[in-house]
Amino acid sequence: MGSESITDRFVATRQRFLAICEPLEVEDYGLQAAAFASPPKWHLAHTSWFFETFLLKPFVADYEPLEPLYEVLFNSYYNGIGDQHPRDQRGLLSRPTLDEVLAYREHVDRAMLSLLKRADGDASGKDILARTVLGIEHERQHQELFFTDLKFSLSANPLYPAYVPAAIEAQQTSAPLSWTRFEEGLVEVGHSGEEFCFDNELPRHRVFLEAFELANRLVTNGEYQAFVDDGAYERPELWLADGWAAVQESHWSGPLHWVDRDGEALEFTLAGLQPRQAGTPVSHVSGYEADAYARWAGARLPREAEWERVAASRETAANAFSMDSFHPKAAEGAELQQLYGACWQWTQSAYSPYPGFAASAGAIGEYNGKFMSNQWVLRGGSCVTPPSQARPTYRNFFYPRDRWQFSGIRLAR
Amino acid sequence: MGSESITDRFVATRQRFLAICEPLEVEDYGLQAAAFASPPKWHLAHTSWFFETFLLKPFVADYEPLEPLYEVLFNSYYNGIGDQHPRDQRGLLSRPTLDEVLAYREHVDRAMLSLLKRADGDASGKDILARTVLGIEHERQHQELFFTDLKFSLSANPLYPAYVPAAIEAQQTSAPLSWTRFEEGLVEVGHSGEEFCFDNELPRHRVFLEAFELANRLVTNGEYQAFVDDGAYERPELWLADGWAAVQESHWSGPLHWVDRDGEALEFTLAGLQPRQAGTPVSHVSGYEADAYARWAGARLPREAEWERVAASRETAANAFSMDSFHPKAAEGAELQQLYGACWQWTQSAYSPYPGFAASAGAIGEYNGKFMSNQWVLRGGSCVTPPSQARPTYRNFFYPRDRWQFSGIRLAR
Amino acid sequence: MGSESITDRFVATRQRFLAICEPLEVEDYGLQAAAFASPPKWHLAHTSWFFETFLLKPFVADYEPLEPLYEVLFNSYYNGIGDQHPRDQRGLLSRPTLDEVLAYREHVDRAMLSLLKRADGDASGKDILARTVLGIEHERQHQELFFTDLKFSLSANPLYPAYVPAAIEAQQTSAPLSWTRFEEGLVEVGHSGEEFCFDNELPRHRVFLEAFELANRLVTNGEYQAFVDDGAYERPELWLADGWAAVQESHWSGPLHWVDRDGEALEFTLAGLQPRQAGTPVSHVSGYEADAYARWAGARLPREAEWERVAASRETAANAFSMDSFHPKAAEGAELQQLYGACWQWTQSAYSPYPGFAASAGAIGEYNGKFMSNQWVLRGGSCVTPPSQARPTYRNFFYPRDRWQFSGIRLAR
Amino acid sequence: MGSESITDRFVATRQRFLAICEPLEVEDYGLQAAAFASPPKWHLAHTSWFFETFLLKPFVADYEPLEPLYEVLFNSYYNGIGDQHPRDQRGLLSRPTLDEVLAYREHVDRAMLSLLKRADGDASGKDILARTVLGIEHERQHQELFFTDLKFSLSANPLYPAYVPAAIEAQQTSAPLSWTRFEEGLVEVGHSGEEFCFDNELPRHRVFLEAFELANRLVTNGEYQAFVDDGAYERPELWLADGWAAVQESHWSGPLHWVDRDGEALEFTLAGLQPRQAGTPVSHVSGYEADAYARWAGARLPREAEWERVAASRETAANAFSMDSFHPKAAEGAELQQLYGACWQWTQSAYSPYPGFAASAGAIGEYNGKFMSNQWVLRGGSCVTPPSQARPTYRNFFYPRDRWQFSGIRLAR
Repeated sequence: MGSESITDRFVATRQRFLAICEPLEVEDYGLQAAAFASPPKWHLAHTSWFFETFLLKPFVADYEPLEPLYEVLFNSYYNGIGDQHPRDQRGLLSRPTLDEVLAYREHVDRAMLSLLKRADGDASGKDILARTVLGIEHERQHQELFFTDLKFSLSANPLYPAYVPAAIEAQQTSAPLSWTRFEEGLVEVGHSGEEFCFDNELPRHRVFLEAFELANRLVTNGEYQAFVDDGAYERPELWLADGWAAVQESHWSGPLHWVDRDGEALEFTLAGLQPRQAGTPVSHVSGYEADAYARWAGARLPREAEWERVAASRETAANAFSMDSFHPKAAEGAELQQLYGACWQWTQSAYSPYPGFAASAGAIGEYNGKFMSNQWVLRGGSCVTPPSQARPTYRNFFYPRDRWQFSGIRLAR
Repeated sequence: MGSESITDRFVATRQRFLAICEPLEVEDYGLQAAAFASPPKWHLAHTSWFFETFLLKPFVADYEPLEPLYEVLFNSYYNGIGDQHPRDQRGLLSRPTLDEVLAYREHVDRAMLSLLKRADGDASGKDILARTVLGIEHERQHQELFFTDLKFSLSANPLYPAYVPAAIEAQQTSAPLSWTRFEEGLVEVGHSGEEFCFDNELPRHRVFLEAFELANRLVTNGEYQAFVDDGAYERPELWLADGWAAVQESHWSGPLHWVDRDGEALEFTLAGLQPRQAGTPVSHVSGYEADAYARWAGARLPREAEWERVAASRETAANAFSMDSFHPKAAEGAELQQLYGACWQWTQSAYSPYPGFAASAGAIGEYNGKFMSNQWVLRGGSCVTPPSQARPTYRNFFYPRDRWQFSGIRLAR
Repeated sequence: MGSESITDRFVATRQRFLAICEPLEVEDYGLQAAAFASPPKWHLAHTSWFFETFLLKPFVADYEPLEPLYEVLFNSYYNGIGDQHPRDQRGLLSRPTLDEVLAYREHVDRAMLSLLKRADGDASGKDILARTVLGIEHERQHQELFFTDLKFSLSANPLYPAYVPAAIEAQQTSAPLSWTRFEEGLVEVGHSGEEFCFDNELPRHRVFLEAFELANRLVTNGEYQAFVDDGAYERPELWLADGWAAVQESHWSGPLHWVDRDGEALEFTLAGLQPRQAGTPVSHVSGYEADAYARWAGARLPREAEWERVAASRETAANAFSMDSFHPKAAEGAELQQLYGACWQWTQSAYSPYPGFAASAGAIGEYNGKFMSNQWVLRGGSCVTPPSQARPTYRNFFYPRDRWQFSGIRLAR
Repeated sequence: MGSESITDRFVATRQRFLAICEPLEVEDYGLQAAAFASPPKWHLAHTSWFFETFLLKPFVADYEPLEPLYEVLFNSYYNGIGDQHPRDQRGLLSRPTLDEVLAYREHVDRAMLSLLKRADGDASGKDILARTVLGIEHERQHQELFFTDLKFSLSANPLYPAYVPAAIEAQQTSAPLSWTRFEEGLVEVGHSGEEFCFDNELPRHRVFLEAFELANRLVTNGEYQAFVDDGAYERPELWLADGWAAVQESHWSGPLHWVDRDGEALEFTLAGLQPRQAGTPVSHVSGYEADAYARWAGARLPREAEWERVAASRETAANAFSMDSFHPKAAEGAELQQLYGACWQWTQSAYSPYPGFAASAGAIGEYNGKFMSNQWVLRGGSCVTPPSQARPTYRNFFYPRDRWQFSGIRLAR
């Protein structure tokens, strides 16, 4: 891909972030209700920091940072770059103000556009373009985090503010659950081809799979309600030991954003508090809850290679459900669907390196590899995932305790 | 005091809060760097809540709250009123926005002015006026907390933002330390007269005091530096057991806002990071540090009755040093000074009820009485205390671990 | 007092400790169910360490310690001596074994007896005897702690083992509560005379007291049950703020050793689980619970000077109830009683230095003085206090959260 | 296998536990220095509880438990059975005493022998024998835990007591490191045949492996020292993110039982504090340390299927090094060795169910399956593993933070 189309993509991605911030009040930009839920302002600054750190500083000889301390303030976790402002204190940075952060973005954008303009003739041109593409994909990931972090942080306010005051569609029913069978065999998993992928999707390699069946759609709120009503949160035999410990310690009694108030079954959404829809996929469940639900239902979570095998055989676009909503929608029809666009799907696979995996050299190698322990792989994409990131080989990963993503359940057996 | 002058005082106090907020950015209003350091926006709302809760709701039959949930969000600790938003999550309330909080203030002000207008002719008139005075004094206390909370929260930002960009006066020397002797005897302590006082200053009662001496001024940064240089923070024998535990757990090595950077002795102030002045009173020390310093210096902290006996014999105004600065100033001349206007002075007296103390009935009785354990009394007033609150009988109280107030040291022996 | 009678007292005190250990199993000697509840074996060793450290090492030129590391292992909190084995890990010292600790005691005893024999003729003779007396009193304090620590640690075992398998006397009723009035006046408090006292009982000084009334006996289990039944543990208005926080955090719903099982009201005692006696003094309540009870009952806790004034006017022996039981007994008759021998009595007085108080020089000065913050004074003595320590001026002190002593409630008003 | 040989094995296994307890003092039996390190007495009781719970109660109609509460006290984690005494409070059970626990063992043994005698003719005979075998294997696992738990608990004592006062052999050198290559291919892993295995070793299934090389021996203390000397514990780039967090939080600077004192390199062993041997395998490292070492050495940890493929092709006996020592020994000769008998070997494989895994029904199904998250598989066996448990398919599992097992490092690449 040439520098021109990359420049276009850079500009579009940078502008999209400003666009999705549009509905916020100034006061919302600093909000951080947990260490993992970074404030909007911090996301805006950190994505700029990424371009500044991995492109402008190494490739632009006379680049002048706007404020030297930003190197520390907006470093997420790159030890190879240096110190980091503590993750749980990002919400304490009332300064730089929003205006100052926007000025920082413009400062970086100007320098990046100038760098990209001369990239084609530059000795490092290929590196520059490759890193720019990585920076764009990185910013897209943070645009998804923007939504989930914001949803979490707003939910800590008893006023339950809405990001956008839209109404969620009533979806009390869903297509019936059915199963598709796949035969045993040696399959190839991992990325191939010229298109961008993250290093953790490589190398492509062989995996032997026993025969399995995959559910045609995600588990719904209504189905999950039956699990809750069956006393699941009081029955240790349904849970992994660590999952049961999490239930006890965190006093879970249902998915993260479910709210029961005065006898009403509600759900907190980016459109505020809304009636809970039985037909909508259940979302914001931990890996432990997904695993326990599957056990209760006489099924199991898919392995990541199983999921990928199925997804690879299907058109991404055809499977994609909806990318422009801020809430998942109900399944329609009997075909295998909701691979993308509704909820991420917990797998039973621990996040670990593919055979032959090698992280990139230097600080940029910290992007993915160092997280390969204790996390579980999720596959697919959610209603707030940038559509351009929907692909069969994408490996998302979170701790099995985590619930603040749009994470749902697809069954296998 | 008649309703008219109380109305004037009400208006002036309410306006002063807006005036001292003037230098803030919108982003600063939600800042909370610790459970004890409430955001400016919350102080603005809570002081309005106080009038709404203890005056408008009981005395205005048709009063309509702007938003019913504010009763919970802005309740500090009054269990008698009901639930409280968790103290450590006040910074997570991006909504109501600043504009909405200002509208809430106006809503309360309008209703209060209307209530005060009819108070003189009202059967509850006396109660209304007394409570309004209490509300005014309450708001003044929060205006002091506004400064100390803000200072603490800004200090968590590595950019060390200034509340106001003023320069702190260079004060490398101070008046010499001297002692005044007071003979033994039975003294009266506690408030008397018609002027306002808090319930914890009552009743006036007799205390027998042995002879003692009191230092003419506060301990300076320079003197405290000598204590630090003498290895005080590594010498358990200088400390109370709980104080030594606090030193270990919190890794204290000097007063809260001292900053040593690249060989420079600095101090974080409301005017930003500034050179540390040897002649300025040491501030932001815990009661444990004050106690250890006194022991090291061969002296002790005063008892609160000793302090009051001395203060009662002096003109408040004459002792008052400076009320309009945001940082304490050095002592000048040999006379006993700095009783008010520089730093609060730790006493060795545990905060406990005076003989015959009775808290007010109802939720308003939670104002003071329920805190009478584990805290120490501080006397005097600081550079950010409203001058109208400087009086010999005022009992301030904090945990001996607390350091975020302008708390300093006056020696006795 | 001459060396001879001190030697007798030394021998008797040392032997008493072995005697009260008699009913234990070897396995019990290492038991520690909380940081504050030291194992019996540790008490046996530490009291020997005290004599070794403050007498044998300074005064016996050729004294050979049995094991050098015991200096660290059995140092409680004397920073002036050196490092200390962590307090919460005393139960992890399976070695030295019980036999080795008993050998350590004998080693120290032999050397002490030899030292005492020559003390009369020694230049340091007076110091030696004074310190020996202190060591004896120290060991007596630990004999009381032996009982309360053991009771706490045994209570962590669902088998509820008994220290001694005696039956607790049935005492369903108690003498009626009445009040004795004392007039206002200047009183003297603090120790006087030749008899031993701790440094915190000095110097004797004057205190002005308003008139007050004191209850004739302690609050009973039955009375406290009425407080519980009135919803006290759900009513924040009855509690100090820190007390209410303790109730919430620790999920208190009654005194420490009360056990309600299958509809039976039981109490864990040193004689095992027993029916709860309504007439027996309530015990094992925190200072917060004592304070809340008093508020609920329309009374208050006494000040320590008030208590001492009353106790000083009475025969200790006449007041003493029972010193040889392991559980308090019910009051009988109408007179003022139970000053000693039943439960320690919480006062509302924070533990602080008397005017003119000076701690002893060196490490031995850490005995009392450094604890003078955040604790409350208790007066009197309990059913496990050595009778020789019952005196009007004795100041016991614990944190207001603490419940594992035989701590009860005497009301004042 | 018939009931007779199972009975023999039962008796031998039960007797072995008493034999390995022989060197303990009574005081050691209750020792628990961390939640994970159960006291010897508890292991003795719990292994009896296992037979009582899963054999005597279901299969002996008139079985009378010695003490009903033991069902709770000695239940480790079987929620299907009922409540459990808190794991971190096992050391607080001074009662039952050692003698009482031994009586409990005898009570269970008598009933078991009688049950086994009639098993051949019983309708449930097959179940009884199968469960007895499981109970025997279970007890063997606890005999290994006895050693590692005891080692950990003794190490918390500054006296560093020895379990046995033997001298550890001097082993300053080791055989050189070399690599064996294995070609890619589809392999079968998991247990097959009639011999006992745990449910987590089933079902046997196919795995595709890329070509790999495996080191002939374990990493030594000397090699690990070079890693430490290269600053590994200060270099985040060598670590997984969670591993680096563990280093920071736990202040690790070397393997668990390494002790550096007065310039001497020592190691705490079951024979007390000993000089550290450069040629001996490094032991008591976490999975994170194993992983970081491998990265530093330009290698990686093996996958569990790789390890099993290699082990399956070798004679267990030939590989086994030493089963009767309490400390690993140095490698000798160039061949692939130390698969068993020295240290468990961390793999990079997360502990997860084999395709088609099904846990047993009922509470006994909690044995393995519920732990299949967040743990890593270790393969092989250590110097304290019962030899009868050494087999290629055995899957041991611990959290990657855990260090108290004899866990070492074998490299792959």
